[in-house]
Amino acid sequence: MATTVDSIGALAERIRAGSQVSLARGLTLVESRSDAASELLAEIWKDSGRAHVVGITGPAGSGKSTLVTAMAQEYVARGKRVAILAVDPSSAYSGGAILGDRIRMTALAGRQDIYIRSMASRGATGGLSRAVLDGIVLLDAAGFDVVILETVGVGQAEVDVISVAHTVVVVSVPGLGDDIQAIKAGLIEIADIHVVNKADRPGADLTVKQLRESLRLSHRQPHQWNVPIQKTTASTGEGVADLLDQTAEHRSWMSNHGGLREVERRNAATRIRWAAEALMAERLRPGYRGFDDAVDALIARTEEPRQAAARLLTAMSVDPTDINGRGNQ
Amino acid sequence: MATTVDSIGALAERIRAGSQVSLARGLTLVESRSDAASELLAEIWKDSGRAHVVGITGPAGSGKSTLVTAMAQEYVARGKRVAILAVDPSSAYSGGAILGDRIRMTALAGRQDIYIRSMASRGATGGLSRAVLDGIVLLDAAGFDVVILETVGVGQAEVDVISVAHTVVVVSVPGLGDDIQAIKAGLIEIADIHVVNKADRPGADLTVKQLRESLRLSHRQPHQWNVPIQKTTASTGEGVADLLDQTAEHRSWMSNHGGLREVERRNAATRIRWAAEALMAERLRPGYRGFDDAVDALIARTEEPRQAAARLLTAMSVDPTDINGRGNQ
Repeated sequence: MATTVDSIGALAERIRAGSQVSLARGLTLVESRSDAASELLAEIWKDSGRAHVVGITGPAGSGKSTLVTAMAQEYVARGKRVAILAVDPSSAYSGGAILGDRIRMTALAGRQDIYIRSMASRGATGGLSRAVLDGIVLLDAAGFDVVILETVGVGQAEVDVISVAHTVVVVSVPGLGDDIQAIKAGLIEIADIHVVNKADRPGADLTVKQLRESLRLSHRQPHQWNVPIQKTTASTGEGVADLLDQTAEHRSWMSNHGGLREVERRNAATRIRWAAEALMAERLRPGYRGFDDAVDALIARTEEPRQAAARLLTAMSVDPTDINGRGNQ
Repeated sequence: MATTVDSIGALAERIRAGSQVSLARGLTLVESRSDAASELLAEIWKDSGRAHVVGITGPAGSGKSTLVTAMAQEYVARGKRVAILAVDPSSAYSGGAILGDRIRMTALAGRQDIYIRSMASRGATGGLSRAVLDGIVLLDAAGFDVVILETVGVGQAEVDVISVAHTVVVVSVPGLGDDIQAIKAGLIEIADIHVVNKADRPGADLTVKQLRESLRLSHRQPHQWNVPIQKTTASTGEGVADLLDQTAEHRSWMSNHGGLREVERRNAATRIRWAAEALMAERLRPGYRGFDDAVDALIARTEEPRQAAARLLTAMSVDPTDINGRGNQ
């Protein structure tokens, strides 16, 4: 696949113009963590920053996919363009499993105002987190107003992924027993909105009560966002409009209270660190300009490791034609 | 604990002068990965680079500790100063277990020409590898001619740790069955010398034969070091003098064939990367000079992540008074 700077520029242009084929190709580059992905991100970065990123997490069986489908339909009814990014950090490559879930979303297929994409961990969780953060930039630049970030399952990896969202929705369901309450305890900290889905089942009010109790025990600061608990029945659409109102209200609250900027700052800091790590991995290796000399200086004891590292980092050119590691190599 | 640059300089001086108390304190700093450790390493780096680092690995029950004790005594008999660094990457903190083994080494205690130290993983394996590599620098600078790097158990973490050695000795033992042969297969690649310890037991010759077959199957290149298989009975000292001759011969061969330099280059490259990561972790964080501005520029879309990262790395001062992250912060 020829990915020169020119063709990357053209790809970025087509993504901006709304081509879903180009978007899919861009997301595949981002997933593969190729050099071309860095170029694409650099190219398209300035067009991002407008989308509302809504994270949805919760245990298996809580009906997340159905809820996400219903939310997407409601967003579209409100004139929004919606992208769904479904991530599975727990499996090495469970594309199949996620895609199975996606079959329920066929109602959404083939529409210009809805885009659905799965991402699974192809190795390190860190790699997936980075692909997700970069993927959001592409979807954002492609003009989607809302990016729904859905995780499969609950765990630390999911929490890491979901924490890049502006608004985190945690889905519970009645009757999953006390075990689930324990899991939720770990999610209480990150929930901006609690949903009790399948609210037509017996026990929904008990689940609401348990969640309210957990929230009370979580010692939230005063003047913080007051986390709502919303009952939904995703299969009928009951409560979904209210949920969308709450996500909009949360975004507005965040915007007025500096919270949105806080999330953006955290994500920006992460992106800078990752970009720095990538630059280092490219350049602090045998054969790259200056590195071999630094190794020799270390062995000759004319320089110590920290000096050598600082000197090499300082020598990293910001010349844009060199920025992809195309040194005199 | 006050660790100013002055006191670190004094500590380095005392380590150079051979103080085992100061050496122990230095190794504790290195294990704790404190800023003071970086300063100490920078201070003492130029005094290192002379010791022969001999790695010893092999399964539990192969008599490694007894062998290491016998080797140390033989080195001392030959007028060498010997340090033993015993590492356990497999347990979070099994200092006790290693120290239990060390009781067998009481024969070596209280002598100026022998030093024994255990290191266990206090978290990430990478942290231990780094502590080991730094620890070797301290022992080397303290004037030990030989550093014996002993691992507990066999596994990828042990292979990572042991690969910093100039000469890798893999210990086998007769009668541990076929399972062990499979484990050895993973070690065949890294062994410079094979030892069949407890060679007075039945089956020693069979083990030698199996090792020879494994070596034959490992497709080593021509003109490579010809890996010897040495039988020892560490408890009586039988074969230990021959083993020492072989380590010396290996070092000499490595020196003449560029292998020693290759190990040094690999270790130096690792040290530079780690130092760069440490510098980055210090400086790519909120509050540090320039970082917050870069985060703002990213959010304002006036800069993309890779540009921001390259600019921040380039701006890293090499001013030695600033090198520990003491920016205008």
